[in-house]
Amino acid sequence: MIKIAVDAMGGDFAPEEIVKGVEAARDRYDDLTFLLFGTENQVKPLIQNMDRLTLIGTTEEIEMGEEPVKAMKNKPNSSLVRAAQAVKDGQADAFFSAGNTGAILAASIFIIGRIRGVERPALASAFPCFGGGHDEFVFMDLGANAENKPSHLYQYGILGSFYAESVMGIKNPRVRLLNNGGEEDKGDEVHKAAHQLMKDTDAFNFLGNVESREIMDGTADVVVADGFSGNATLKAIEGTALTMMDQLKQSIKGSGIRGMLGALLLKPALRSLKHKLDFNENGGAVVLGVKAPVVKTHGSAKANAVANSMGQIKRMVQENLVGKTTDFIKENAEQLKVKKSSK
Amino acid sequence: MIKIAVDAMGGDFAPEEIVKGVEAARDRYDDLTFLLFGTENQVKPLIQNMDRLTLIGTTEEIEMGEEPVKAMKNKPNSSLVRAAQAVKDGQADAFFSAGNTGAILAASIFIIGRIRGVERPALASAFPCFGGGHDEFVFMDLGANAENKPSHLYQYGILGSFYAESVMGIKNPRVRLLNNGGEEDKGDEVHKAAHQLMKDTDAFNFLGNVESREIMDGTADVVVADGFSGNATLKAIEGTALTMMDQLKQSIKGSGIRGMLGALLLKPALRSLKHKLDFNENGGAVVLGVKAPVVKTHGSAKANAVANSMGQIKRMVQENLVGKTTDFIKENAEQLKVKKSSK
Repeated sequence: MIKIAVDAMGGDFAPEEIVKGVEAARDRYDDLTFLLFGTENQVKPLIQNMDRLTLIGTTEEIEMGEEPVKAMKNKPNSSLVRAAQAVKDGQADAFFSAGNTGAILAASIFIIGRIRGVERPALASAFPCFGGGHDEFVFMDLGANAENKPSHLYQYGILGSFYAESVMGIKNPRVRLLNNGGEEDKGDEVHKAAHQLMKDTDAFNFLGNVESREIMDGTADVVVADGFSGNATLKAIEGTALTMMDQLKQSIKGSGIRGMLGALLLKPALRSLKHKLDFNENGGAVVLGVKAPVVKTHGSAKANAVANSMGQIKRMVQENLVGKTTDFIKENAEQLKVKKSSK
Repeated sequence: MIKIAVDAMGGDFAPEEIVKGVEAARDRYDDLTFLLFGTENQVKPLIQNMDRLTLIGTTEEIEMGEEPVKAMKNKPNSSLVRAAQAVKDGQADAFFSAGNTGAILAASIFIIGRIRGVERPALASAFPCFGGGHDEFVFMDLGANAENKPSHLYQYGILGSFYAESVMGIKNPRVRLLNNGGEEDKGDEVHKAAHQLMKDTDAFNFLGNVESREIMDGTADVVVADGFSGNATLKAIEGTALTMMDQLKQSIKGSGIRGMLGALLLKPALRSLKHKLDFNENGGAVVLGVKAPVVKTHGSAKANAVANSMGQIKRMVQENLVGKTTDFIKENAEQLKVKKSSK
């Protein structure tokens, strides 16, 4: 049995959609059990069936806009902090939340704790790509860090490779560094130094730089970015996709009956496009580099996305992602230290 | 009469499309004259009419992949270097090229020269936005610099505001800083410090941070970014737009007759969307902070984009963009120095 600690109060549609998603996952996967942390009188009435669910009453909530580290410290009885604490205390195997990203990161790092030897955990997500033989690639760091050192980026190659291989089933994942040009001397000092560390390693399969224009082309299974430009790239992709969908709708509306009819005929094609691009539906972002699986879905996640994230956690636990990563880093501690000091 | 020095050999479709575009601009604007720099036996046969055109034979070409500074130094008789040199020597008012971006930047900075007081010239471009009262905003630095200091970003607020106001006719342009969150304490050290410099200034109208997800929403007339994340954001937007268009086509093809018919009916709507998003068609990227207008169109620019860029240069010269910027920086030298030392 795999036990998942769930923050039932985090997210735009919490607790309703979280509880619904948890129950869907419970019915879908018979080896999952859940510790639900949330305000009892709000969560209890929503539960259809207590099978493999335990509700633990909490009295505080961390809001979306709160300053993460402060919120974590000031609200020890919040659903988010209590769920992370349950993992730390060994009562659960993994932590799930759709709440405040910063607070989830803070709780992951300060409560659950970093894997020994990992300098900076990162936020990673599977992203759709078109071509290259796989449907998705791992993109990290998406903003856990406002700035990174070369050694952090080097470690992300390791963390991302383990995720791609264990959870996504990609053999010998191709790792690339997000940079502003293909040549190895491109970029600022951090990216130049990171490229050199990655180029010389045998810890993963490094194939060089990739530009943000090409990350969806399928030439990489793991794209490593510093948190600042990874975050900017992620949000630019989301913003462009939304803007285009919106403008397409406007253009259709503006072209009268003809446009409406065309749109009606194209509905299946448009729906399939939307589905392909909807990377939030297939699971959540993961915090890599901490001592347990942590998954954070989009704040606006509905029940189905929540349930899919539970499937993702199940794979992470079953494949022993954290254990494998920990062992590798331990066994290669000397090599990693050399890497670190040469940055 | 405004004299434009043109690198006739730079770009994927040079010299054909460059010469065609120059002739179209000559016929469109009667106050423009052109110095065409290029390989005589290639360029001369393409010219229909020598009215207001002077061809100056050159013997070298800088290729797209060449290392910029080296290429500039090793090929003094290239069309690109000679065109920049003509501006430096006072024989022309502005420099145009569709060639190697790095070499254009290098020639702009090292041959034409920085405006006194400008620390780091930047690459800027007008970008489409949807909402906010204007169709376009200025986005910079798009990658002239691999890394920037806070004082550079502060200066980009000045350079971008003058461009938006003089060339795009936007009064009191709203400036925002591209960052990974809205609050002033967001970002790495560079962006936090830049925010403080910008917040306290009366040199331009600063409205705070913007995330890359929202840059096309029209809340800013000038978006200032460091060259690394500006470049990543630009390329992510381009890549996403291309991927979506491509995937939409695939989805349409995959849905048979029904999809084909729908696409046919939607053709005007799709064309209008494509047109709105095609920021390369309306003009080129400009190098801001150097002593003359410099415009670089996309390497794949066709004649119409080239001609539109000439219109853009015409406005820059007529509005005395460089003179206004130079005077402002001179008059505010003390204030700018204070800013610089506080970074």
